[in-house]
Amino acid sequence: MAYELYYWPGIQGRGEFVRLALEEAGVDYVDVARGSAKDGLGIRAMLRVMNEAAHPPFAAPFLRDGDVLVGQTAAILFYLGPKLGLTPKSETDRLWAHQIQLTVTDLVVEAHDTHHPLSIELYYEDQKDEAARRAADFRKHRIPKFMDWFETILDRNPAGDAHLVGRSLTYPDLSLFQLVEGLSYAFPKTMKRLLKDTPRVASLHDAVSRRPRIKTYLQSERRIPFNEDGIFRHYPELEGQ
Amino acid sequence: MAYELYYWPGIQGRGEFVRLALEEAGVDYVDVARGSAKDGLGIRAMLRVMNEAAHPPFAAPFLRDGDVLVGQTAAILFYLGPKLGLTPKSETDRLWAHQIQLTVTDLVVEAHDTHHPLSIELYYEDQKDEAARRAADFRKHRIPKFMDWFETILDRNPAGDAHLVGRSLTYPDLSLFQLVEGLSYAFPKTMKRLLKDTPRVASLHDAVSRRPRIKTYLQSERRIPFNEDGIFRHYPELEGQ
Repeated sequence: MAYELYYWPGIQGRGEFVRLALEEAGVDYVDVARGSAKDGLGIRAMLRVMNEAAHPPFAAPFLRDGDVLVGQTAAILFYLGPKLGLTPKSETDRLWAHQIQLTVTDLVVEAHDTHHPLSIELYYEDQKDEAARRAADFRKHRIPKFMDWFETILDRNPAGDAHLVGRSLTYPDLSLFQLVEGLSYAFPKTMKRLLKDTPRVASLHDAVSRRPRIKTYLQSERRIPFNEDGIFRHYPELEGQ
Repeated sequence: MAYELYYWPGIQGRGEFVRLALEEAGVDYVDVARGSAKDGLGIRAMLRVMNEAAHPPFAAPFLRDGDVLVGQTAAILFYLGPKLGLTPKSETDRLWAHQIQLTVTDLVVEAHDTHHPLSIELYYEDQKDEAARRAADFRKHRIPKFMDWFETILDRNPAGDAHLVGRSLTYPDLSLFQLVEGLSYAFPKTMKRLLKDTPRVASLHDAVSRRPRIKTYLQSERRIPFNEDGIFRHYPELEGQ
């Protein structure tokens, strides 16, 4: 049976980290909320699960695999990893992969808050001044700190610096690709500069983009373009001069 | 060998979620950064691990257990749970417990950002106005949304509403206790009101506080008092009138 991915239609958002793993593995999945109500899909089908499940996810994305329902992006990937062949073999390395993924999660929250530093109940336009201050801090302090960490852990990988964990592709590699994509969309000048100092991150990003299934996916209609409703938004005023 | 917990001394912070699990289990652990440099402990010992480890944690807290080094609060608890007898038996329930813990993590980030909405590089005093706006949103929208979710999942637990997962104590119960403690310290009026509408959460909180080892711990010097350097801070102006 196909995996069912539930996430808000119209944005890449957190769902994209799961989508990339499903696409790389080449498995069947239904992107439920992007489907049509007449097929029993769509946003209402998603909200129904959130309202009625015995283990209701706090928020999307969540995944249904038969009887298993799991929310939280990093937990979804932890669950899917072994099934998709995208997780390391040893328990210790699986925990390390998960720890990396949770650090990706932290950065995603901070990226979101650059345009919504005060409240998600308000529009960006109602918190633009605060967003500019938060984004300046994010560009100056936070992105470099995270990028340096990713570069360091690539450098220290005893199996080589082509992957975050071990000698082959695992799901955190795909998520790091997506982080670089998203941050480069939101803050192109900042990222262009930073990627020069983090060549291993840049190289992993490029290698992922060239993987056949990822390449096909990125050119398909399944890949929603970045836009200003998502987590990574390009507001030129947030990148300063 | 004793577990080694690494976290900033002087605050409960994220380390406290791990401490509560270790204390409830009654196992030996060393709170490394709170120790003395002449014993090879203290902050420098912590920073050394962060700077030199093959798998360096992005941030504290992290835990060392022999050869295993693991960071990210939720990942530490996922690792420790089975060893401490604080995790459910089935794989599905373990994933659910972890998912709950990751939702606790999300709320902790938001609690922190009420006093630091713009930047952790600035003092609270330099972002007081923004903090007041973010805190108002947090009190009005976010705490209720999370509290309602915890109440709902207690209510829907097929094994009864005394615990979040199954019929006995697991680590997310301890973390929910700590959330209620912290939020009640930071926003006492808000929480007093909300706990009336979430009686299952209130009751679980009280039950945890009466557990013999937790009670002893809370009265010990090992429990650092809440203060205005931690994640949960009491600034009366952030609770409004």
